Amino acid sequence: MPSLAIHRLPMAHPGDLSALAALIEGGRLRAADVRAVIGKTEGNGGLNDFTRGYFTQSLMLLLAAHTGDTPAALTARVPCVLSGGTEGALSPHYMVFSVADTVTTQTGLALGTDFSLAMPNESIGRAAQIHAVAEAVQVAMSAAGIACVADVALVQVKAPAGRGGDPAARTRDPKLLMALSRAAAAFGVGVALGDIAPEAALENALLSDYALYCNRASISSGVEVICNEVIVFGRAKGWAAGLTAGVAPMRDLLDLAGVQAAFQAAPGEVLGVIAKGEPDVSGRIRGQRHTMLGDTDIDAQRHLRGALGAIVAAVAGDGRVFVSGGAEHQGPPGGGLVCVFAREV
Amino acid sequence: MPSLAIHRLPMAHPGDLSALAALIEGGRLRAADVRAVIGKTEGNGGLNDFTRGYFTQSLMLLLAAHTGDTPAALTARVPCVLSGGTEGALSPHYMVFSVADTVTTQTGLALGTDFSLAMPNESIGRAAQIHAVAEAVQVAMSAAGIACVADVALVQVKAPAGRGGDPAARTRDPKLLMALSRAAAAFGVGVALGDIAPEAALENALLSDYALYCNRASISSGVEVICNEVIVFGRAKGWAAGLTAGVAPMRDLLDLAGVQAAFQAAPGEVLGVIAKGEPDVSGRIRGQRHTMLGDTDIDAQRHLRGALGAIVAAVAGDGRVFVSGGAEHQGPPGGGLVCVFAREV
Amino acid sequence: MPSLAIHRLPMAHPGDLSALAALIEGGRLRAADVRAVIGKTEGNGGLNDFTRGYFTQSLMLLLAAHTGDTPAALTARVPCVLSGGTEGALSPHYMVFSVADTVTTQTGLALGTDFSLAMPNESIGRAAQIHAVAEAVQVAMSAAGIACVADVALVQVKAPAGRGGDPAARTRDPKLLMALSRAAAAFGVGVALGDIAPEAALENALLSDYALYCNRASISSGVEVICNEVIVFGRAKGWAAGLTAGVAPMRDLLDLAGVQAAFQAAPGEVLGVIAKGEPDVSGRIRGQRHTMLGDTDIDAQRHLRGALGAIVAAVAGDGRVFVSGGAEHQGPPGGGLVCVFAREV
Amino acid sequence: MPSLAIHRLPMAHPGDLSALAALIEGGRLRAADVRAVIGKTEGNGGLNDFTRGYFTQSLMLLLAAHTGDTPAALTARVPCVLSGGTEGALSPHYMVFSVADTVTTQTGLALGTDFSLAMPNESIGRAAQIHAVAEAVQVAMSAAGIACVADVALVQVKAPAGRGGDPAARTRDPKLLMALSRAAAAFGVGVALGDIAPEAALENALLSDYALYCNRASISSGVEVICNEVIVFGRAKGWAAGLTAGVAPMRDLLDLAGVQAAFQAAPGEVLGVIAKGEPDVSGRIRGQRHTMLGDTDIDAQRHLRGALGAIVAAVAGDGRVFVSGGAEHQGPPGGGLVCVFAREV
Repeated sequence: MPSLAIHRLPMAHPGDLSALAALIEGGRLRAADVRAVIGKTEGNGGLNDFTRGYFTQSLMLLLAAHTGDTPAALTARVPCVLSGGTEGALSPHYMVFSVADTVTTQTGLALGTDFSLAMPNESIGRAAQIHAVAEAVQVAMSAAGIACVADVALVQVKAPAGRGGDPAARTRDPKLLMALSRAAAAFGVGVALGDIAPEAALENALLSDYALYCNRASISSGVEVICNEVIVFGRAKGWAAGLTAGVAPMRDLLDLAGVQAAFQAAPGEVLGVIAKGEPDVSGRIRGQRHTMLGDTDIDAQRHLRGALGAIVAAVAGDGRVFVSGGAEHQGPPGGGLVCVFAREV
Repeated sequence: MPSLAIHRLPMAHPGDLSALAALIEGGRLRAADVRAVIGKTEGNGGLNDFTRGYFTQSLMLLLAAHTGDTPAALTARVPCVLSGGTEGALSPHYMVFSVADTVTTQTGLALGTDFSLAMPNESIGRAAQIHAVAEAVQVAMSAAGIACVADVALVQVKAPAGRGGDPAARTRDPKLLMALSRAAAAFGVGVALGDIAPEAALENALLSDYALYCNRASISSGVEVICNEVIVFGRAKGWAAGLTAGVAPMRDLLDLAGVQAAFQAAPGEVLGVIAKGEPDVSGRIRGQRHTMLGDTDIDAQRHLRGALGAIVAAVAGDGRVFVSGGAEHQGPPGGGLVCVFAREV
Repeated sequence: MPSLAIHRLPMAHPGDLSALAALIEGGRLRAADVRAVIGKTEGNGGLNDFTRGYFTQSLMLLLAAHTGDTPAALTARVPCVLSGGTEGALSPHYMVFSVADTVTTQTGLALGTDFSLAMPNESIGRAAQIHAVAEAVQVAMSAAGIACVADVALVQVKAPAGRGGDPAARTRDPKLLMALSRAAAAFGVGVALGDIAPEAALENALLSDYALYCNRASISSGVEVICNEVIVFGRAKGWAAGLTAGVAPMRDLLDLAGVQAAFQAAPGEVLGVIAKGEPDVSGRIRGQRHTMLGDTDIDAQRHLRGALGAIVAAVAGDGRVFVSGGAEHQGPPGGGLVCVFAREV
Repeated sequence: MPSLAIHRLPMAHPGDLSALAALIEGGRLRAADVRAVIGKTEGNGGLNDFTRGYFTQSLMLLLAAHTGDTPAALTARVPCVLSGGTEGALSPHYMVFSVADTVTTQTGLALGTDFSLAMPNESIGRAAQIHAVAEAVQVAMSAAGIACVADVALVQVKAPAGRGGDPAARTRDPKLLMALSRAAAAFGVGVALGDIAPEAALENALLSDYALYCNRASISSGVEVICNEVIVFGRAKGWAAGLTAGVAPMRDLLDLAGVQAAFQAAPGEVLGVIAKGEPDVSGRIRGQRHTMLGDTDIDAQRHLRGALGAIVAAVAGDGRVFVSGGAEHQGPPGGGLVCVFAREV
């Protein structure tokens, strides 16, 4: 009978895993129990952000030293979802999700993971990716023992963004390919959870029909990713009680009530926070012009993370918030979602 | 008997005064009644932000065309306080404060202005500037008929930052000279309002003794400024009722309750919002590391404005917030203040 | 009989026209003789660079004060081509081209200008713009008395970039629309000069068939521009001798010999330098990977101007070089051109 | 009898050592022969550039896998000098310097290395560091068998920059401490090579008396560095002939002749290029204002590297140039140096 634990740990720099090493060496966490890591590094969050690779390399070296597995084997089994960019009030940190066997029989917060097959460049942002993600969500739910889609709180996906310049790719614009990959993964999650009708989840609707979205999907994409790595959180029988996850949509960037609703849905000691959002492509928020999309000097996603992160951090009273931009089809246009993990008290 | 009006207007770009022109041409505002303008332009807010100068030139040309005064005469009489940087959720806008004669006798929100003598480079960030600002605050209070310092809501100062490379200046680092100028002006306001004891307001305490601060001072500095331009807001007899100003301190960047307190102190229709804050120089907010001060690619003040602006905008439900960094001695270290102007309903 | 003069003047900031004012007030230049201004301001050179508008407003105010014309009339008659971005070794400056009557009959460097009709958004980046520019080049040549296309040294065009969000526009991506406008203008120049066959200069070839280019076209585009403003430089009878223009192509960014060839083609005292280039879209220069196109923190054009500007400035021994990115169809892919104005000695 | 080899290798990203791995696995280079690595990664080159740490970790893992040494032991023995920032025309790459035993007895290019003792924070930018570097240079010369200081071509030093916030440090400004460390190391090299008189190399002269400099010192500093890591290049007996190093000073950023002199001093096939420079703190280059030091959006060193790198790359015809800013006391103010490694042909 599994029991999920969440540790939220600081890092002094993107290669610093000393806090996790101390937990392992202190006997408080078995390296072999680590099932997923979700974190924020202080890179720029864009194409030339290498802090994600540096952290992942350092993490897998540490886990390898304590499990005897090779870094490559661990990388193929343990999803490590990183988002670069700790603009403004945000603080670099990572959440370690571990699962240990316990003897109690209860209903509690469950976690399941799955890796799809490797996606060739020509499949990214296409029907093949939508289907692969939908299937991986079902496999991960099944692995966690989550009985029905209503019990799923959040699906976090790390999606491949392809390699530049492949003529077979749907586009040769690397930023657009990243967005298409996020969109396809969001569609896949939406289909698996019943939030998007399968017959509507068409390739042509990606980045086009924004009425289609899934407010329980949180997607990031990266060029270093090979397949779709899926982490499902939800309630399931046979998992130790005590942890909970609350999710709420944000209708726009200033939706303070939406943020507060997510915290109210997961009362207790906060163990981790995930938020997604995006600069409103209309160029306006509640009728007022914003300037995120036309700034030559600061990337729009860096603007977005600084703003969204500060709002969520102000409600949490804590800058350790996983905020990621690129929320295509993960909420209404210009909006997003907030997910709070808490220990019930 | 004067009556204060506040118009909050959009701009399409930093040279766009069309919204004010429309008010004047439509007979809704007399150009000669304009007493002060406070606004946010979409520049980078730093040394090489020229959107402030562009807006000011455009404003004065417009007022000159309608008043018959020269742009130079208007510039010497109408404070125009601009802060560059509309990061994240912020929206470029400006508040026009105008005063018209009315026939009612009431107590209401009053405004007074004063310009100190020109500050030579060697006076900036020194006792001479502290005294000049303190005196200008008293003149402006007197002009507005504000009877006692307890009735002052906020003092906004636009302070000179000197010209680079003057050997007589206290420092040749232009950013430091800007900070010293803000600090000296904050001391001047604090002394005038009784928030800082005159005997403590010493040159050596500037940027050094952060226990000294005035939570009703909002200071910006710029190299294009020649003297200390002071705008005092407060309650006074003989001013038409109906407008109010609420001010509250922020103890740190995540002080959501502080922001909410300012809005509660000025119930009604919000006409304008001013906020000041700064990246905590300790490198931490509530114990968690932030990365604003060590980012080679995004200026710390741009980080700060994006974060603080989003929090205040989320409470306001509106991105039209005047947010300015550089809050030395204008609140506790790492903290700041929020001032809300509202029409009572 | 006209005589062309070129003054290269410094600016302390984008609103500083004091050097030109001094020339006019000192009787060294008649304001009414000013035919065109080409300059570099220290903005970021992108969508949110307002230094161009600030300089233009300030220039037209100065000329209006000395000519009696309105700023609007001057703006519609005197092309003012500005490029933002003085990265690296570059120095903010502007070149004032003035034409005075003289009594000598010679052959020399001539200048002609023309403004096309206003371009509606739906014409930008389309055949209509190609034709409008081609026609304007012919009008400007004729005005200057340049007899044949072989005598044209350079055509500088300031092209309209449309207003965002117009559904009738060829694209709603503002950066792409700017590029399409530059491309169409380059095609127009190429057709007018015989460097591109009219039957090849098709709308579909814009930003597509890079074998089509004109090495005597230097195009910039801006959202503040209404019509195509064309400046033609070349040799013509009836113009005073003494000035010369040398132009040479650059085959890639590192083509030092190309830069040197332009200077050798215009021996004497250098009066001004114009250079165009672009980051090689292949991602490589002479086989080595460059990182200009994938930097989240520095815009590719800022990278390009810093690099190209330094190379040209090193050959010139002077940072006053007009360097502008966005060289689509103005040279081979990844390459560009250099034009040197000199006084023969 | 040793023989020096230089391999200049591309990297696809800062963790990509595949080109070196291929050389080792192909038998073309013994991992145990690697004596030093000098490279450029595509980070921002500032305080929050983690590409240096990522590359170093990846390099040491590779060498460890092939030598049996631990990464820690290799890090303490093999200097790995990295500079972040491949702005403009620059290309990410690294130079691997390896030394193998051969049987010929000749005079050729020699390499020696030494690591000083660890520097506590309070020693950085002080006399202790000057002396430690001077001594390390002598040890490295001796190790290489370089008989006299006139035979030294270049000394590359990687100097410690201390840890932030130590009250014992000479300053708590981390950027200033980095500069002081570079300055002290330059003094140390200058003293060791006789370019700076020992009695002049005083702590108070650091960053103050810019008449003191050593044009054969190339220094970088980083917070991840513990001690002074010194690499000396020069001519010595007992080293295989065939390689040469040419060094020349640059008097300012536009000193094209200086760059060309370095290439002329090392004729043949270019194997690597090192350049140092800095933005002129006077704010002018040859009398014209530059804007590198006051740009809020692009760091001055990023401006500098883009400009200097392009000039050197244009002469080399190759973007693989190691360009590093922060040239305090490594050349005249505003100037720098260029060093070219070549295989004689």
